[in-house]
Amino acid sequence: MPSYTPPLRDMQFVMHELLKITDEYKAMPRHAEVDVDTVNAILEEGGKFASEVVFPLNITGDQEGCKLDKETHEVTTPTGFKAAYARYIEGGWPALSCDPEYGGQGLPVVLNQAFYEMLNSANQAWTMYPGLSHGAYEAIHEHGTDEQKKLYLPKLVSGEWTGTMCLTEPHCGTDLGLLRTKAEPQSDGTYRITGNKIFISAGEHDFVPNIVHLVLARLPDAPKGSKGISLFIVPKYNVKADGSLGGRNGIFCGGLEHKMGIHGNATAQLVLDGAVGTLVGEPHKGLQAMFVMMNAARIGVGMQSLGLTEVAFQNALAYAKDRLQMRSLSGTKAKDKPADPIIVHPDVRKMLLTAKAYAEGGRALTMFCSLLIDRELHHPDAKVRKDAAELVALLTPIVKAFITDNGHIATNACMQVFGGHGYIQEWGMEQFARDNRINMIYEGTNTVQSLDLLGRKVLGNQGATLKKFGKLVAQLVEEEGVNEKMAEFINPVAYLGEQMTKFTTEIGFKAFQNPDEVGAAAVDYLRVAGHLVFGYFWARMAQVALREIAAGNQDPFYKAKLQTARFYFAKLFPETATLMRAARSGSKVLMDTDEALA
Amino acid sequence: MPSYTPPLRDMQFVMHELLKITDEYKAMPRHAEVDVDTVNAILEEGGKFASEVVFPLNITGDQEGCKLDKETHEVTTPTGFKAAYARYIEGGWPALSCDPEYGGQGLPVVLNQAFYEMLNSANQAWTMYPGLSHGAYEAIHEHGTDEQKKLYLPKLVSGEWTGTMCLTEPHCGTDLGLLRTKAEPQSDGTYRITGNKIFISAGEHDFVPNIVHLVLARLPDAPKGSKGISLFIVPKYNVKADGSLGGRNGIFCGGLEHKMGIHGNATAQLVLDGAVGTLVGEPHKGLQAMFVMMNAARIGVGMQSLGLTEVAFQNALAYAKDRLQMRSLSGTKAKDKPADPIIVHPDVRKMLLTAKAYAEGGRALTMFCSLLIDRELHHPDAKVRKDAAELVALLTPIVKAFITDNGHIATNACMQVFGGHGYIQEWGMEQFARDNRINMIYEGTNTVQSLDLLGRKVLGNQGATLKKFGKLVAQLVEEEGVNEKMAEFINPVAYLGEQMTKFTTEIGFKAFQNPDEVGAAAVDYLRVAGHLVFGYFWARMAQVALREIAAGNQDPFYKAKLQTARFYFAKLFPETATLMRAARSGSKVLMDTDEALA
Repeated sequence: MPSYTPPLRDMQFVMHELLKITDEYKAMPRHAEVDVDTVNAILEEGGKFASEVVFPLNITGDQEGCKLDKETHEVTTPTGFKAAYARYIEGGWPALSCDPEYGGQGLPVVLNQAFYEMLNSANQAWTMYPGLSHGAYEAIHEHGTDEQKKLYLPKLVSGEWTGTMCLTEPHCGTDLGLLRTKAEPQSDGTYRITGNKIFISAGEHDFVPNIVHLVLARLPDAPKGSKGISLFIVPKYNVKADGSLGGRNGIFCGGLEHKMGIHGNATAQLVLDGAVGTLVGEPHKGLQAMFVMMNAARIGVGMQSLGLTEVAFQNALAYAKDRLQMRSLSGTKAKDKPADPIIVHPDVRKMLLTAKAYAEGGRALTMFCSLLIDRELHHPDAKVRKDAAELVALLTPIVKAFITDNGHIATNACMQVFGGHGYIQEWGMEQFARDNRINMIYEGTNTVQSLDLLGRKVLGNQGATLKKFGKLVAQLVEEEGVNEKMAEFINPVAYLGEQMTKFTTEIGFKAFQNPDEVGAAAVDYLRVAGHLVFGYFWARMAQVALREIAAGNQDPFYKAKLQTARFYFAKLFPETATLMRAARSGSKVLMDTDEALA
Repeated sequence: MPSYTPPLRDMQFVMHELLKITDEYKAMPRHAEVDVDTVNAILEEGGKFASEVVFPLNITGDQEGCKLDKETHEVTTPTGFKAAYARYIEGGWPALSCDPEYGGQGLPVVLNQAFYEMLNSANQAWTMYPGLSHGAYEAIHEHGTDEQKKLYLPKLVSGEWTGTMCLTEPHCGTDLGLLRTKAEPQSDGTYRITGNKIFISAGEHDFVPNIVHLVLARLPDAPKGSKGISLFIVPKYNVKADGSLGGRNGIFCGGLEHKMGIHGNATAQLVLDGAVGTLVGEPHKGLQAMFVMMNAARIGVGMQSLGLTEVAFQNALAYAKDRLQMRSLSGTKAKDKPADPIIVHPDVRKMLLTAKAYAEGGRALTMFCSLLIDRELHHPDAKVRKDAAELVALLTPIVKAFITDNGHIATNACMQVFGGHGYIQEWGMEQFARDNRINMIYEGTNTVQSLDLLGRKVLGNQGATLKKFGKLVAQLVEEEGVNEKMAEFINPVAYLGEQMTKFTTEIGFKAFQNPDEVGAAAVDYLRVAGHLVFGYFWARMAQVALREIAAGNQDPFYKAKLQTARFYFAKLFPETATLMRAARSGSKVLMDTDEALA
């Protein structure tokens, strides 16, 4: 059976020593009172909830899965899931970073994300239920009418109701412009919505009396394609003006998918048969409104893989210290034992450190992004808000794709540490790998993320936002360029930063002549950008560690941080050499292949 | 539902045009009569059996799994598995490459392996039952007494009985020196064997009346460690001198593992309680005898991933042509359709071609190895036999680790082509990825393979065997060095060959001072060696294709081969740059990490 210990020390390192979040919050009136003690107390309580309440349901949830009663269209979630959710509500957790106007606690996004990292380590399938609610909250908060906000937000904030995102249809996932679900306006201002949705995570369940579905559909006069899509609130039970529940609405679960992983989450086929809905935002502008949810969701998916990388690492590390097998190549280490613990083997260490470096790098990046979102939402200076918004937009596809791909590498490496036992369900390792696998696919496949990054966020504004990130790198180089001890960390990042500029210009130039060059380079480009960003954070983490060590701090945490940074630059970062070479080989070897793919 | 078409054309290309096997067989008395028509007829029949009989049971077998009756200790395999095995016997398939003295057809190993590739594409879980029998056949054929051969081989050859390999125990997998199962000599020359084995593939099932377990155990006077292990035949039912079945032997299935994949294969915990066994080979030399099975099994595991890579590719290709989603970045391609088929997108092509290049490269390499085994077994010239044996020993860990890692990359890429549908069981794609995952682990993890390659096969003889492979590369360079059209294929291989020599010397020198340098470099080294070998075969395949095209052959197969070769060298082969850089960074960043792994 696996175990999980919330990585509070490393979270606190990132929050307080690397990002100094409470100093930042002093500049934001909403968060000016958030101090280190408050942050740490919430982390600790959140960690307890994740490890004690949610984590014990992870393997059983995977084995039981969800069950649909085809008569009633009701879904039963795995044993214990509903009770854990009740405790989640009791603890006030759904309200953590929500707007106080609707009952929220108004705390920073950084805190909510750190809590979600721990929930995801504990149980991704369970965490998706509240996670999707939060997305629905954000879309209604941003685009809903006052009446919609009044009716739905307090219940979503309290967790009494949950939410979903209903985008995908059998014939369209990435290409939402093709969607067919129809919305017919009624004389009372509502709409009757008819169509079929698939892959709706947390789409039906037994946690709460009502589910607030956010549904994309077409109005009768809608233009074709993605500019003719509107967003609707379609509750499972109609909601009366006083907030109480009315009759059952015409949205039913027609089936549950059998999946590779996240078995504890109900992935529903939803049939809408004249379901009553209300419009969110403007007609035909549903996709933009939905993007509020999707950008948050994309960072949320990165957090899912971060959580799985961390928990996989912890368990592989424990196993590697415990499992005795063979002797060290450089001589027996555990003379009193029949064999050495496998952690003596260099490649076992490599697998473990890969997961550790990706977990800690991912934690730094996602907390930084969350801090940017806090700035974007609550900083008094409009210029700061705009800069933050642009930078988080640039980093979002990197968080989603780079961290989920790294999660794939890391969970598989950690599973490999277990040898044959890694393949056996009871050890829990193969589940981390299976659960993680969806993260590379949903909320826009990682290929879609890479096109978003290279095509829209980088080339779309001639690299202007990328330069903003480049300034952070330049600033670090300036600060530490003369520090010999930092050279091993700074030099590779500075060099890659320079190469990246040239590399981007090259692709931009080629893309100008042939747009397929973007598609050919994008996935490799995103991974190079990911390493630039991780390299930057690993250099900054090394900087903090070196300063503490120089100041006489004996905490082995700092030495560990330096060792992991060295490993990262020696063994993982060099991937950029291959990625750039492959990207530079261009689109021709891909597109001139009709016979090969006949 | 997935589909599968045996890749007969490509198999024939490798056999007849690349390796010219029937020319080779003319030199081997045993196979001198094997002609192209015979080969093709067997391939065609084998392909029919795999695709029509075994493939339809793949998804259902995964869903049903195996069931153990805890009272009787008997296992029921998934619906249809037993009937398919009966047809397998009827068709005479188990006998294909077995010794005619025991009822075999005496056909080349190349043919048997090609058949197994197709079986593995069709259903790896099912194929493991006959696959393990073949291993038991080989061990008894090589090391058994005349009586053992007479009693067991005819039934294994006919398929009336099946076999297993019983190595692993709960506390030892890689490190068999730790094993505890005991064998007590009896006055009648038999042994009573007691202990617990785990992870025994095909360890119990309902296919046949008897199972021939090959069991590793210790004699009372055994030296400690791996030099004190003996090999025994322990049948499920005792076998009387006339070959008929006696009483039930004391070897029982105590449990079945719940695994990530290969659900259709019974992975058994076997309890031996004074089970009667007979010694195979010499006392205390069981591990060497077992290695006969393990080397064949390692190539067999590579074949499993080759099969999965091929079938995943076929299905992803079909889906990519069928699924309409978004428009091509370089302008609409399917004007009459609501969107373009996703095969227009460069990254979708990249994922498909990755699988194709790995499948076709793997097919060339594994058939070459099988031909080497045919040479080793049946060539009249002792020098040829010895060279073949050494080369196949060098290539075996590459076949096992490189092809299974590539299978991981390829099955996951093909699954990714399906987007969300790739994660859903009914499409079958996630099963290919799950089934493949065990191949990186069992029969010696891929880390163990890399240590075998670098430590034993390369540095163990100062690179002498590696130079044999180098000679093949040099010969190709000599043949084609002046052919401009071949430069794009030859140059990277020749360059890598040179680097490899230097790289090997470097590691050898460092390892002399610190043996952990071998462990730190081995996994990267194996992948570099894998690309050298694949690069060599891709260059030779391009050579054949160019010659055919130059001769006016219009078959688009050759153009496809060239396109795939170009893709391989542009997008996959450059991985070697990163691998060598990471390997050169040495062991210090791995071993000097005690605080990081505290």
